[in-house]
Amino acid sequence: MKKAIVLLSGGMDSAVTTAIALKENDQVCALHLNYGQRTQERELKSFLALCEFYNITEKLIVDISYLINIGGSSLTDQSMDIENADLNNKSVPNSYVPFRNANILTIATSWAEVIEANNIYIGAVQEDGTGYPDTRVEFFEAFEKVANFGTKPETLIQIKTPIINLTKSEIITKAKELNVPLELTYSCYKSNEIACGECDSCAYRLRGFRLAGFEDPIQYLNRPIY
Amino acid sequence: MKKAIVLLSGGMDSAVTTAIALKENDQVCALHLNYGQRTQERELKSFLALCEFYNITEKLIVDISYLINIGGSSLTDQSMDIENADLNNKSVPNSYVPFRNANILTIATSWAEVIEANNIYIGAVQEDGTGYPDTRVEFFEAFEKVANFGTKPETLIQIKTPIINLTKSEIITKAKELNVPLELTYSCYKSNEIACGECDSCAYRLRGFRLAGFEDPIQYLNRPIY
Repeated sequence: MKKAIVLLSGGMDSAVTTAIALKENDQVCALHLNYGQRTQERELKSFLALCEFYNITEKLIVDISYLINIGGSSLTDQSMDIENADLNNKSVPNSYVPFRNANILTIATSWAEVIEANNIYIGAVQEDGTGYPDTRVEFFEAFEKVANFGTKPETLIQIKTPIINLTKSEIITKAKELNVPLELTYSCYKSNEIACGECDSCAYRLRGFRLAGFEDPIQYLNRPIY
Repeated sequence: MKKAIVLLSGGMDSAVTTAIALKENDQVCALHLNYGQRTQERELKSFLALCEFYNITEKLIVDISYLINIGGSSLTDQSMDIENADLNNKSVPNSYVPFRNANILTIATSWAEVIEANNIYIGAVQEDGTGYPDTRVEFFEAFEKVANFGTKPETLIQIKTPIINLTKSEIITKAKELNVPLELTYSCYKSNEIACGECDSCAYRLRGFRLAGFEDPIQYLNRPIY
C-alpha cells in the first residue's frame, strides 16, 4: 500500500499537490502548520475545507509558533511591513521565513516514520516562485538524504515536489485538469479574511490566472492586473 | 566575531559541548527544547543552571511538544515503558524519538540565520551511544548541506559535533579537563526528580564514570554497577 503525507497549507499550490498525491497513492494524510503567520486562521479554514472535499481523515495540525520568537520575516513579525508585490525582484523578499520549509519537512518526516508513510509531498515552486532559498530542487534533494540518514534503517522517505518546475499559470491549468476546488484555496500573505490582492503571493496568483486564461474564483479586496 | 548556537539539553554531553563552544567562539547562545519528554522540567532546570554557570544570556527555549502527538517513542509516550538498560543492544531502542535531532537542528538553523550565528554545536555521540540513527556523522554532514541550501546565500552554517567520536568515559575525562560542572547536569530518561539509575542513559553515564575513574556527583535512586 502506498501511503503519503502531503503538506497542505490551504494555498493553491498545495491543493494541486494534494490532488496529484491522491492519484499516486492509496492513502494520503495531511499535515498543516500554524507558524504564527498573519493569515493563520484563514489558512486553517482552507486546509479543513480541502480535507473535507478530498475526504482526507488522517490530519495533523502542528503549532510551530516558535517561529514568531525567532522572527526575521514579515509573515511572522507584525512590526515589519508586508512588501507590496514586486514580481521582478530577484533577491530574497522579507516574507521569507528562515528555513521554514525545513521545519515543515522535518515534522513531516517524524510523522512519516511513525505512520509508515514513504512519500512526502510538498507543493514548492522554484521557477516562477518567490526567490525563497528553501524552494530549490537542491534543497529538497539534500533534505531527502537527511531524512534517510536520520531515521531508522527500515524507514524510506521520498520527498516529492511534483509542481516544482511549473509556472503559476501551468499550476492553474493543472488544477483545472484535476478539478481542484480552487475556490476553497487561499494564498494571501497579509489579510486574514479576504485576499489583499497586493502582496507577492496574491500577485503571483492573479498573474497566473491571467496567463492561464481563467478567472480566479476567490474574492479580493483589490484586484490589480499583473 | 565568531558566534555560535549550542544545543543544550542539560545533559552531560551537551554541557561538555558548551564548554568547547565557549573556547572556540566569541559569543555562545543556547537553545533548549521541550519536546514533551518525561524529564522536561528537570532538564530545563539543568539548562538554566548551566546557562547561569557559563554566563550565557542569549537563550531560546522552544516548545516542540507536537512530538507527543506524533508519538512513537517511550520518551514522549507515557503508555510505553522506558526499557531498562541494555548496553549491548544493537537495534534502535524504543527511547528513540523519530527524527528528533533534525527537528532540533532545524530550529537552530532558523535561529542562526536570524541572529547571524555560523556555528551550531550539538553534543551527539555516535560510537558509544544509543544506536539512534540521528546521531551518525553522515546525518550531520547531510544536514549541514541542507542548512546551506535552504537558507539565504549569505547564511553560512557549520554543524559542529566535537564529541561525536568520544566514548562516554572520554567525555567525562574531557569534562574534568574543562572544569564542566557535572553536578549541574542531568541525563536520566525516566525520573523527573532524581535519576533512576536504570535506564539506558543512566547506565551509559554510570559506566562512563566508572571507566574514567571518577565518581558521578549527581544523586541516583538506584546505582547499579555497569
